[in-house]
Amino acid sequence: MPEISIIGAGGFTGKELLGLLARHPKYKTVHLTSDKLAGKKISEVFPDLPFPEDLVFKKHEDQVPKGSLVVLAVPNEASLTLAPRFLNAGHKLIDLSGVYRLHDREAFEKTYKLTHTNFELVNQAVFGIPELFREKLKGANFVSNPGCYSTSVILALYLLGDIRKKIRSRIIADCKSGVSGAGGRVEDGGFSFTGVHENFRAYKILAHQHEPEIQEYSYVGSGLPQPEILFVPHLLPLYRGILSTIYLETEATEDLDVLATLRKNSSGEPFVRIRETPEEIDLSKVVHTNFLDIGVRQRGRTITIVSALDNLVKGAAGQALQNINLMLGEKETLGLLP
Amino acid sequence: MPEISIIGAGGFTGKELLGLLARHPKYKTVHLTSDKLAGKKISEVFPDLPFPEDLVFKKHEDQVPKGSLVVLAVPNEASLTLAPRFLNAGHKLIDLSGVYRLHDREAFEKTYKLTHTNFELVNQAVFGIPELFREKLKGANFVSNPGCYSTSVILALYLLGDIRKKIRSRIIADCKSGVSGAGGRVEDGGFSFTGVHENFRAYKILAHQHEPEIQEYSYVGSGLPQPEILFVPHLLPLYRGILSTIYLETEATEDLDVLATLRKNSSGEPFVRIRETPEEIDLSKVVHTNFLDIGVRQRGRTITIVSALDNLVKGAAGQALQNINLMLGEKETLGLLP
Amino acid sequence: MPEISIIGAGGFTGKELLGLLARHPKYKTVHLTSDKLAGKKISEVFPDLPFPEDLVFKKHEDQVPKGSLVVLAVPNEASLTLAPRFLNAGHKLIDLSGVYRLHDREAFEKTYKLTHTNFELVNQAVFGIPELFREKLKGANFVSNPGCYSTSVILALYLLGDIRKKIRSRIIADCKSGVSGAGGRVEDGGFSFTGVHENFRAYKILAHQHEPEIQEYSYVGSGLPQPEILFVPHLLPLYRGILSTIYLETEATEDLDVLATLRKNSSGEPFVRIRETPEEIDLSKVVHTNFLDIGVRQRGRTITIVSALDNLVKGAAGQALQNINLMLGEKETLGLLP
Amino acid sequence: MPEISIIGAGGFTGKELLGLLARHPKYKTVHLTSDKLAGKKISEVFPDLPFPEDLVFKKHEDQVPKGSLVVLAVPNEASLTLAPRFLNAGHKLIDLSGVYRLHDREAFEKTYKLTHTNFELVNQAVFGIPELFREKLKGANFVSNPGCYSTSVILALYLLGDIRKKIRSRIIADCKSGVSGAGGRVEDGGFSFTGVHENFRAYKILAHQHEPEIQEYSYVGSGLPQPEILFVPHLLPLYRGILSTIYLETEATEDLDVLATLRKNSSGEPFVRIRETPEEIDLSKVVHTNFLDIGVRQRGRTITIVSALDNLVKGAAGQALQNINLMLGEKETLGLLP
Repeated sequence: MPEISIIGAGGFTGKELLGLLARHPKYKTVHLTSDKLAGKKISEVFPDLPFPEDLVFKKHEDQVPKGSLVVLAVPNEASLTLAPRFLNAGHKLIDLSGVYRLHDREAFEKTYKLTHTNFELVNQAVFGIPELFREKLKGANFVSNPGCYSTSVILALYLLGDIRKKIRSRIIADCKSGVSGAGGRVEDGGFSFTGVHENFRAYKILAHQHEPEIQEYSYVGSGLPQPEILFVPHLLPLYRGILSTIYLETEATEDLDVLATLRKNSSGEPFVRIRETPEEIDLSKVVHTNFLDIGVRQRGRTITIVSALDNLVKGAAGQALQNINLMLGEKETLGLLP
Repeated sequence: MPEISIIGAGGFTGKELLGLLARHPKYKTVHLTSDKLAGKKISEVFPDLPFPEDLVFKKHEDQVPKGSLVVLAVPNEASLTLAPRFLNAGHKLIDLSGVYRLHDREAFEKTYKLTHTNFELVNQAVFGIPELFREKLKGANFVSNPGCYSTSVILALYLLGDIRKKIRSRIIADCKSGVSGAGGRVEDGGFSFTGVHENFRAYKILAHQHEPEIQEYSYVGSGLPQPEILFVPHLLPLYRGILSTIYLETEATEDLDVLATLRKNSSGEPFVRIRETPEEIDLSKVVHTNFLDIGVRQRGRTITIVSALDNLVKGAAGQALQNINLMLGEKETLGLLP
Repeated sequence: MPEISIIGAGGFTGKELLGLLARHPKYKTVHLTSDKLAGKKISEVFPDLPFPEDLVFKKHEDQVPKGSLVVLAVPNEASLTLAPRFLNAGHKLIDLSGVYRLHDREAFEKTYKLTHTNFELVNQAVFGIPELFREKLKGANFVSNPGCYSTSVILALYLLGDIRKKIRSRIIADCKSGVSGAGGRVEDGGFSFTGVHENFRAYKILAHQHEPEIQEYSYVGSGLPQPEILFVPHLLPLYRGILSTIYLETEATEDLDVLATLRKNSSGEPFVRIRETPEEIDLSKVVHTNFLDIGVRQRGRTITIVSALDNLVKGAAGQALQNINLMLGEKETLGLLP
Repeated sequence: MPEISIIGAGGFTGKELLGLLARHPKYKTVHLTSDKLAGKKISEVFPDLPFPEDLVFKKHEDQVPKGSLVVLAVPNEASLTLAPRFLNAGHKLIDLSGVYRLHDREAFEKTYKLTHTNFELVNQAVFGIPELFREKLKGANFVSNPGCYSTSVILALYLLGDIRKKIRSRIIADCKSGVSGAGGRVEDGGFSFTGVHENFRAYKILAHQHEPEIQEYSYVGSGLPQPEILFVPHLLPLYRGILSTIYLETEATEDLDVLATLRKNSSGEPFVRIRETPEEIDLSKVVHTNFLDIGVRQRGRTITIVSALDNLVKGAAGQALQNINLMLGEKETLGLLP
């Protein structure tokens, strides 16, 4: 039975992954760490999360069980140090930080305001969107799990396939996320109840760290140059879910039958659902699932795509499990679909 | 003391206007109607609305006090019938419906799916955004109050002034509104608690009735042709407020110093506030006020404008009162600022 | 593999049960009905509910697969007709309505304003709180699943054991529920977004149908007469969860060490958790679980008990599944704990 | 024109009071302090609060304009030092802290865990519930404004009048408040969005500082001994409003016609509304007003009273203004009713 270790299991994503693993038919969670929660049991920290074995949180530096697959869910700086350590110790590794996603070092350092101390590792990492890189993910030793906003936009654009040749590169992604996707921490005043409830705002306008990620991967494999992406995130007064409204401009006014293309290109995909109209897309249909829902409308030169996912599932822990299944040679949907 | 009659005072906007009039230093509300609430007192219907005189709701067809200014807050069909009746009886009239806003009859009938039976009245009506038509509104007898979404987008574009000559006509307005701005009625399942709470969705994508209104008025007086507007409204899980994110494309990459232009063009405007950055804009700063807040960011060829208002105040009842002040020759801010 | 049929699967509880059954390791859901949704697939009606087989909703009168255990989740009137039909056809039956819970016919008819046409069946039904009637539930053919509020109060009182002899009979249960526990339907104006959001109120004060149920079962088996219960429900602006604050008066001021008694009396119970302090109890710790959390504080003659559960799980579908497990001779926690 | 100085104007209550004073027809706010916000303008700190003069926040120790009435809205410790300073300087003073409310020194020190350094001042202060102490408040120099929970319970009990002679002293007050009434500060993790949204809990059970205050004043002037109060506060996932459910036990089962008594005893009170049934009481009817709504139901020996108010208005700033009006010899409702 494959064993899983989670480094940094005390956050939103760690908890979500624990919830998925609690019911997973094949994997055994053997090791959890959180420097803040070290010494506490799962049942104390997450009382709404019944877990088969009531593991105790350890420290990051504690010995990780040999042979276990490591999920690294720590801040960017910590990931720079910890990822090579686990790889060198022979663990399969999936990293949830942003540091092994971008192949443009300058873009990385500008975006993350961080010097990259292991840039050679970026080329070893497979970017963890199975719909893009399924074959590479099978049996992979090192996977870089994508951002939540990124997944909602990249997949919508990627599944356009050849239609991308007929649209202008300048793409607007107006995205809206609940607090768990906006990176909110309890300590951050911006995420106090009175700051969020009955409120709405844009933040990091054209300055969010997921923009270069969307840019690098949306057109990957298409032979086209990377598109210009204009990404504006907003904060919704709710807990979980991301809805992205994406605006494309076609080169001619012909009807491109985008719906049919999306259906064809996502055919067989277990976690992508194409809806008849974009008005059918809403958060309530995707939260607590690993699905990405997509709808589309063309009018003249404009294509409007709406996509939605649960930032904690398909945008983080669910996609991580989908990748782990592939890394371990298991069925991709194991533990994610009944 | 000028007297005010409100026809259709039982809805969201009627209530908001009553709240403003309750504290107004000069006007006396003398007549209220609601076919549904006829016979009930204000204190029964709106217990959170202390009112100087506890008026009783009458029926729409009841006699309106002579000489009173009439606020017409009824559905579009009813406004087609009632507006000419009040005008012919010599009342000053401000109409809150959509039927006297558009000068393109075909656009109107297509948008509202309604045959216009008084189209000649459209030319008599002044469109009620004071920042655009202040001089015409002074002493006007007939004003057509604009839509809530429309106000948030038109004003942002109008205040660009000459910058509009340097941007492409194709403008994207991605707007987000609470339920009171999205026209929600209790009876509508889409606005049940379980349909809205912890949820988010786009609706009437590129098909909302405010799109032609935004198109007609955003460039009015500029000498430029009407721009192409792509308007996508979304429903927020909150009660009041609209935040619009507007995407413009410039013709060249030069920095247009949009912030300075917005400041100059709104100088002296009592209800427009230009913010230093678009991240400062949020609903909490405008709700329960008649302010429109605007912020802007340019990057390369893209200008992103964020605007916010309270759909029930600057987007409806507050702007109506601003217009009434002008119609009656009073100070524009009376009852709207201390 | 035991087969399950759900009659009336389109409501809040039906959906929750489907979610549990989707992941159940042993049962196969073979039949679903909803007169309103007949002809539609699970994936259309509940897109956030991945289900192993995408069953189509049938009509209530359609043939139910022979030998399947029937879950009856229909209104009270319908249950009066349907329950005997399924029992007579030899199905094991668990009924979620209120009509087979009360043994006092007069109390029933007064409470539910309904003539009971099958009162003899009440004696055949086992009341489905396993912590009270586990032995009778094992292998039972007919179970009456309790109310959500009832479960939160009955269990807290029942687990007091002998302490009940030392408290006055007059017990106050001040309960607060989210909309799914308050029976809200989309059509009901009281549960519109604007009626619930940023609002709070009591309803059916000392007049709720769960009061006689709490009265009948809280002291069952204790040899004591039924207590006087004063039950006041309130509506919270949230989706799921019930928190009950229960006030008891002791006969003397001695410290009864209620915490120790609750711990002893719930020892071994898989779904009851006694917390160190009542301030630790909150909805976030029980939602999406089958747990009931209980905390207690005594001061002088007053014992305050706080209990919390998810009205859709331990208060409805989860407890139903717990009962089904017992009825079918399976492990009680199957499909409810990992 | 009377001048007002507010010491500690940066919190929830300070802001609410500024909002009321902005529209007040007679008072001029001349001085504001906040050690944290010193140097900032009202328009920066509270952009949703248009104020006639855009005052700058000063420091607590800055010179307060002579002759101005001082509103002291600082923490308890600070009030112990500052209140005597302002009184000695000849200012009329209304204090919003808890330190001049209780006449039982021991109860105070136990409750507030604070040594009282000016206990002689308690006897100089008039407790600021006008419905109880109107005559003393007229022209008073020193008023102690009551707590928000306290007001909602004390008034409901006080208005019972002689009925208090027929009820048992042991009174249960089960109260529910939004975050602004529960004392939430942004810095407090308990009031993060994720801690409050979709959540509900009791806190400080039988240990809240308002309990002795309710005890001291509920029966004041009745000739009866102070009642035993059992006060349990709860935290609602909303911004403003307190609803209290109060349970009384009568000595006999006769119908006491409590409704008629409440109506008689509150007759002429401008801010108390007695409702026909307790189910009519809800937060939406009182928020943003200075009203206290009360409803009642008797069944047998039990009287259930439901009361509701806006904790920031009748529970704090509104009641303070009501008191200020009395202190300054103005009409009690000035600036609170149109």
